[in-house]
Amino acid sequence: MPRFFIAASNIFGGIAYINSRDAEHIKALRIRQGEAFTVCDGSGNDYSCVLTKMTEDGAEAEILEKKPSDGEPSVYCTVFAAFSKGDRMETAVQKCVELGAAHIVLFPSARCVSRPDEKSLIKKTSRLQLIAEEAAKQSGRGIIPAVSAVQSFEAAVKLAAAADLPLFCYEDERELPIKTAIESKPDAKTVSIVTGPEGGFEPSEARYAAGAGMMSVTMGPRILRCETAPIIALTAVMLLTGNL
Amino acid sequence: MPRFFIAASNIFGGIAYINSRDAEHIKALRIRQGEAFTVCDGSGNDYSCVLTKMTEDGAEAEILEKKPSDGEPSVYCTVFAAFSKGDRMETAVQKCVELGAAHIVLFPSARCVSRPDEKSLIKKTSRLQLIAEEAAKQSGRGIIPAVSAVQSFEAAVKLAAAADLPLFCYEDERELPIKTAIESKPDAKTVSIVTGPEGGFEPSEARYAAGAGMMSVTMGPRILRCETAPIIALTAVMLLTGNL
Repeated sequence: MPRFFIAASNIFGGIAYINSRDAEHIKALRIRQGEAFTVCDGSGNDYSCVLTKMTEDGAEAEILEKKPSDGEPSVYCTVFAAFSKGDRMETAVQKCVELGAAHIVLFPSARCVSRPDEKSLIKKTSRLQLIAEEAAKQSGRGIIPAVSAVQSFEAAVKLAAAADLPLFCYEDERELPIKTAIESKPDAKTVSIVTGPEGGFEPSEARYAAGAGMMSVTMGPRILRCETAPIIALTAVMLLTGNL
Repeated sequence: MPRFFIAASNIFGGIAYINSRDAEHIKALRIRQGEAFTVCDGSGNDYSCVLTKMTEDGAEAEILEKKPSDGEPSVYCTVFAAFSKGDRMETAVQKCVELGAAHIVLFPSARCVSRPDEKSLIKKTSRLQLIAEEAAKQSGRGIIPAVSAVQSFEAAVKLAAAADLPLFCYEDERELPIKTAIESKPDAKTVSIVTGPEGGFEPSEARYAAGAGMMSVTMGPRILRCETAPIIALTAVMLLTGNL
């Protein structure tokens, strides 16, 4: 079923008012009057609609049913990923949205090769936000996860450490498997996952995260690429919290 | 630590004889005489070495220690993925190798858009085999997983159904979560994962797989892209069998 996110303010009186960009998409998909699709208000509600008319600046659809989006997981999971090359970030963002991440935060880390300045960072996050929107539509999410960036590793850790289950994925961790860490907090409502750059975290960064109260976890003996690690960690969280 | 796969027949008398292609790579990495790296015989054994000399047609290294590769998981997992577009297949193969897949098998399925003829299939699998080799080196695997193809869906299912834990990932499955299926066979030594093309499997294909004894499983309410599904399923297997 085609799926569009529209502002909640454009849903009223049993009608969904669709903007010109999405109306173009409706045309491209050859959806005709009387045919069904879904609109989502981006706050976790889905509306089953049928197209009633194309207008000059958009389209209108009659709402048949409102219900909570079933694409939203029961845990609020934020993924903190160190900056990396463009295509790797894109893969990570796309897959994390498919898997149910609520928010994706980029941060600089000691061994990051990629250190975008503020201007290119804005451009980068805007591009990643579009990828997140596309992935949210395609996978049937009830929200469009935000993609944002913070200016330092310390800022990322401070935010991440506030979660009920704050996971710091560290290549040199040998003791605590991610499964054990997740299972130790069965009632966690908020989860954060922090993953490093291509060369991994500096030991000083790992110490800082532990000092801030994060749980340092291992994901096995194989070396995961920087874009693979958040996908695997998020899968582990969703699987063990009953969201897969 | 840099890592090279070499034929077991090139390891004897305490010396590893390295071919010219890998010797070029050693040069590119600026590894000098006396410096350490790892060679792997591709059968699950790692050898700690130091470079002793560069020769006309390769290089030689003294072996200091032989030990089992710790990058190999305790389960033998084969991933059967329906044909899809090149870049999607590449992502799936790369990540599945990082995650510990033993073998990757491509197959045609009713809704596959991509239906390569025999010639382009050979080209495609050769390219994917190189990606598997690269990923095996980088992630610290003890084998190079083979990438192969079979000519029909039925042939893939026949092979897959022979595993102790034969998982068929089906979008329309509502009953059996993948976690429950994996936990129902705690002693499985061999696992197979079958994932579909972009449009999912036909109901008739799902019936065929069930008839062959495969377990139809769901991975939650979100729609996963065809290259994401094998990665998630394999993560679930590795996580729940103690390999992550």
